Amino acid sequence: MRKVRVGIAGLGTVAQGVLTLLGRNHQLILERTGLSIDVVRVASRRAKEVDLLGADFSTQLSDLVTDERVDIVLELIGGEQEAHQLIQDALAAGKRVVTANKAVIAAHGNTLLAGDQGSRLAFEAAVAGAIPIVDALQRSLVANRFRQLLGIINGTCNYMLTTMELEGISFDEVLARAQSLGYAEADPSFDIEGIDAAHKLTILLALAFGARFEFDKIFVEGIAHITADDIRYAAELGYRIKHLGIARQRQSGLEARVHCALVANDSLLSHVDGVANAVALSADAAGDMLLSGPGAGAEATASAAVADIIALAGSTDTRETSPQGAEAIQRDQDNSTSGETQLLAMDDIESAYYLRIPTLDRPGVFAKVAAILSDSNISIEAVIQKEVKAGKEEVFIVILTDTVAEKMMSATCNALGELEDVVGSIVSIRVAPTD
Amino acid sequence: MRKVRVGIAGLGTVAQGVLTLLGRNHQLILERTGLSIDVVRVASRRAKEVDLLGADFSTQLSDLVTDERVDIVLELIGGEQEAHQLIQDALAAGKRVVTANKAVIAAHGNTLLAGDQGSRLAFEAAVAGAIPIVDALQRSLVANRFRQLLGIINGTCNYMLTTMELEGISFDEVLARAQSLGYAEADPSFDIEGIDAAHKLTILLALAFGARFEFDKIFVEGIAHITADDIRYAAELGYRIKHLGIARQRQSGLEARVHCALVANDSLLSHVDGVANAVALSADAAGDMLLSGPGAGAEATASAAVADIIALAGSTDTRETSPQGAEAIQRDQDNSTSGETQLLAMDDIESAYYLRIPTLDRPGVFAKVAAILSDSNISIEAVIQKEVKAGKEEVFIVILTDTVAEKMMSATCNALGELEDVVGSIVSIRVAPTD
Repeated sequence: MRKVRVGIAGLGTVAQGVLTLLGRNHQLILERTGLSIDVVRVASRRAKEVDLLGADFSTQLSDLVTDERVDIVLELIGGEQEAHQLIQDALAAGKRVVTANKAVIAAHGNTLLAGDQGSRLAFEAAVAGAIPIVDALQRSLVANRFRQLLGIINGTCNYMLTTMELEGISFDEVLARAQSLGYAEADPSFDIEGIDAAHKLTILLALAFGARFEFDKIFVEGIAHITADDIRYAAELGYRIKHLGIARQRQSGLEARVHCALVANDSLLSHVDGVANAVALSADAAGDMLLSGPGAGAEATASAAVADIIALAGSTDTRETSPQGAEAIQRDQDNSTSGETQLLAMDDIESAYYLRIPTLDRPGVFAKVAAILSDSNISIEAVIQKEVKAGKEEVFIVILTDTVAEKMMSATCNALGELEDVVGSIVSIRVAPTD
Repeated sequence: MRKVRVGIAGLGTVAQGVLTLLGRNHQLILERTGLSIDVVRVASRRAKEVDLLGADFSTQLSDLVTDERVDIVLELIGGEQEAHQLIQDALAAGKRVVTANKAVIAAHGNTLLAGDQGSRLAFEAAVAGAIPIVDALQRSLVANRFRQLLGIINGTCNYMLTTMELEGISFDEVLARAQSLGYAEADPSFDIEGIDAAHKLTILLALAFGARFEFDKIFVEGIAHITADDIRYAAELGYRIKHLGIARQRQSGLEARVHCALVANDSLLSHVDGVANAVALSADAAGDMLLSGPGAGAEATASAAVADIIALAGSTDTRETSPQGAEAIQRDQDNSTSGETQLLAMDDIESAYYLRIPTLDRPGVFAKVAAILSDSNISIEAVIQKEVKAGKEEVFIVILTDTVAEKMMSATCNALGELEDVVGSIVSIRVAPTD
């Protein structure tokens, strides 16, 4: 029997999930792995009525670093600055660190994972909860070159979009419900504006494509502009609207973007509903893979954190636990970012588009719209034109286009908006890439 | 840079996939993992016009064992006896072994994985191709107790059932097509009778539930009895018919069975189509997970085998690479199989059922059927009774039952079969468990 002694920073939901999980499955883990995971210290600003499994309690985070018994620090305090400091200090003290903190990894991954130290830092719990996507990218699929990654990586957004579709209710109604169910925070902006998803995509991009951790270079849009109308029209066209993190290897560089997209009904990803997360990968050898599961929750996140503890407790090879981090760092130090890992500007991506154009119900309007698209060399794949509702002069022209350059589509939408018959803002939603 | 020297047994499809993958991505793997994978010898009965990446060629498998340069033997010859012998010999010679051979692991896992030797044998490629299910069970989800595992683990069966549904064609038609496309062998019995799926389920059962590798104790049914009618009626009831490997932890023991089942449309598993495989897991901490991808194919299988090579090349910990194998073996050596890991007899399982009862179109038939079900205490969840086709006296009564003991359902079907108005054999298909 080997032992590993863990110090936990934080006593919030996830930390409590870890304590519950270790309390319940300590013996099972020992039988399976030969490892006894012993929590020796918990540090948190305030004590709570929680079973600490016999661990000492501190109000000072620094006690975890100075406690010589602690082999592995499990960082679960959240936030950015204080957590970053703790991780740095623990690594500098020679400890191994497990974190669920996507913001810290997304912002500081380049330095935290640099060199040998990177092999002592594990972060499976930072991306998509219990889904073993970090392990898949670092180990199981490490022999593959990736073409594309599409991720439903924010459970709040997915719950809200799924519920809007199932019940035909508005964004504001579903937000209120998500808040009452605890799926959305009182200030929901972090989730619904896409920031959380962008943190995760930053990490996935580094692991799958060897890109630098550069959160601020990811294009981000949220879900607040999606209406029940758009969800319904998308369904008529054979699609569902999902909030995605998208990474694609193109010849000229890497696409990295977070936004809502139409996902075709015949893809498995389109059927990932509610608060579930999923990552769909296209790899040169493995083909098309999908990993799905709970993206958040106390014990789901704890499951990933405890797996990291077990992996770090057993690892002796400095390259093994963080090979792709190592790759990213190598590139960083060389200062020779290759074309392949350079992020493309949003203007340089290509996508098919869903357009909803509010127009007056007059003869010839569709012809004018079609002429503008034709002038821009944009092919129309499908059209829906809806009857006018009683007493309304407005009609929606809904168009699904073929693939077109983002820059061209922006210009075309501007041109469409200048038509006299167009009587409101044009909604444009990208279609998720399929290859 | 570390080096690992590999000897490959076999030169069939998967072996060629490994050579192609290593030829293409050798540098990528080196950058990511710091490991150079060098193939030093390939052994196969016959030479082929294939790029051996500079490896020596032998017609004797034993050359792989005696070649002192070989660190890892990659067994890809298939079959059972010869492959088993090679794996044993290579392990006895102190080498590490990677195999894609599900039959050998399912039949000989208890001895091959026993003791320290188990840590030198990896078999991710033996189950569900590129899907990292072995790694998930051994590492990523190792802190979890599993409640249930449902797997679409035979691509041939899934292709055939999907195509029967999409095109409404018969079993014989789709079998011919699957054979012409190379999705089914000339002798398809291994796949369509469920043997292949049972091999894989045996392995999953050992990994997830610590059961012994006992292939011969798994209940197995194939897909040949499924008709286009059943697929259509199932769809009307909100289900799709999939060929599943099912493992469930019950209070009284473990269920382990391979058969066709109705899978509810609102589950992600029901949307896994064509030759794809998928494993859905219910775990106490991680919750409901699904891993999907190609279950076969040269490079998909190669992706898993190469990942195993990399993991074995880096591993120094004897428990780490095969913790759950170690658990199963421990139980084996103790000879103290606990109630939890005892396989339940098929009579002792419980399931909901789909029944299709061919009856004469006479008044009162349904009442008689309902009375027999009621006498057996079987609740009816849904009923479809179809109009008679012109010129036919026969009508199908289709019933979806509540959960009932297998033994009771067998007896009830016998009783139904004795009704004068029942004019053919009753088709019964289990419904996949949902919890």
